[in-house]
Amino acid sequence: MIEWIGFDADDTLWENERYYRETQEKLGQIVAPYLQDGDIEKILYQTEIENIPHYGYGLKSFGLSMIETAIQLSNQSISSGEIGQILHLIREMVNHPVEVFPGVIETLQQLNPSYPLIIITKGDLLDQERKLAGSNLAPFFQWMDVVSEKDEATYQNLLNRHGIQPKNFLMVGNSLRSDVLPLVKLGAVGVHLSQAYTWEHEKVNNLADHRQDYYRIDHISELPALVKKINPNHQ
Amino acid sequence: MIEWIGFDADDTLWENERYYRETQEKLGQIVAPYLQDGDIEKILYQTEIENIPHYGYGLKSFGLSMIETAIQLSNQSISSGEIGQILHLIREMVNHPVEVFPGVIETLQQLNPSYPLIIITKGDLLDQERKLAGSNLAPFFQWMDVVSEKDEATYQNLLNRHGIQPKNFLMVGNSLRSDVLPLVKLGAVGVHLSQAYTWEHEKVNNLADHRQDYYRIDHISELPALVKKINPNHQ
Repeated sequence: MIEWIGFDADDTLWENERYYRETQEKLGQIVAPYLQDGDIEKILYQTEIENIPHYGYGLKSFGLSMIETAIQLSNQSISSGEIGQILHLIREMVNHPVEVFPGVIETLQQLNPSYPLIIITKGDLLDQERKLAGSNLAPFFQWMDVVSEKDEATYQNLLNRHGIQPKNFLMVGNSLRSDVLPLVKLGAVGVHLSQAYTWEHEKVNNLADHRQDYYRIDHISELPALVKKINPNHQ
Repeated sequence: MIEWIGFDADDTLWENERYYRETQEKLGQIVAPYLQDGDIEKILYQTEIENIPHYGYGLKSFGLSMIETAIQLSNQSISSGEIGQILHLIREMVNHPVEVFPGVIETLQQLNPSYPLIIITKGDLLDQERKLAGSNLAPFFQWMDVVSEKDEATYQNLLNRHGIQPKNFLMVGNSLRSDVLPLVKLGAVGVHLSQAYTWEHEKVNNLADHRQDYYRIDHISELPALVKKINPNHQ
């Protein structure tokens, strides 16, 4: 019996990854004159992954990784004025208006009277709070938990702290790796939301191993009907 | 009757501000050859304060503000190699060993059997988790809340969420502005820990207005006796 529903935020409730890709393209233009060889997208991604243990996830980490990549790829020949342009790109992202996906508000309106809803998200605390405020979705949610990693231990910890049994918890998100599989392992219900944009790091290779263990929806507006199917007797 | 005790972390449980000052001095050395005039310490502080609404608190914000200040103060003539040295300073801070203050462990050992203890701190989520893990103090605490701002609304929200009445809550920390006064306004007990190093931003000017409303201790090891004085009948 589902009693609580958890939502991922970035790329589940609102647009996110697209801005990262657009910013990455602008970084490419800034660095282009210095680029002998090397794929900037690939090297930026490697730098980001290497920096996760030091900086964690989110916008500021991405910013520091962009600066590091630009210095490295240009062999220190990029100017500090151009580094200043990269700082400007970070600032643009920080202040980007929030674009809530179509269907999200209607879905939350349908689920909210019957289920307490929470957000569980990675990234920068302040940035996620800004997005929640800017989305006008805050009234639908009991609270938002910003975590540094979305693994089994983190979810177990969170559910314990809130006194929620895994079997009574359903989590929906666009990342199989972060939003679905760790919950399934804990005995909760995972719902994968297929999404056009998902960060490379969130992708899972051995999909076939897991395909039977979770639900899959193509659009967030399918969620209320799925919940009703799983929980036919819930009021 | 006190039932819960909250601790600030940076500069209350472990060293923090000193590293920022040391790093700032190293930044000064990197920027020195480009410095026509202007006080780097003052300009870095201004940049940090201006960036709080965009980046929030913590190490990564400080890093981005150092880079911005270096570019601005050098009039874009600092090299990207030197910006790389600033990135290196940030990385040094991220990986700095945690130095727990003398008396902290003994204090927590005395309080822990009688009171549930929690940490409420600002800063980067991952960085605070790293410090808590590195301090070996985690077993003393029920949990740590990392918040984006330490004001009345945030504390009210946190206490509500945990079902704690303000009159049953005592908070101790080195910052009057962040750890003491907002709690006192909510009706909780505030304890100010005088500390050698406190960030400029955390200082309060009109001290005389508040001096009667909170307790003041010079060292963390005075806390158990103070709690016993406030709560003489608590087991």
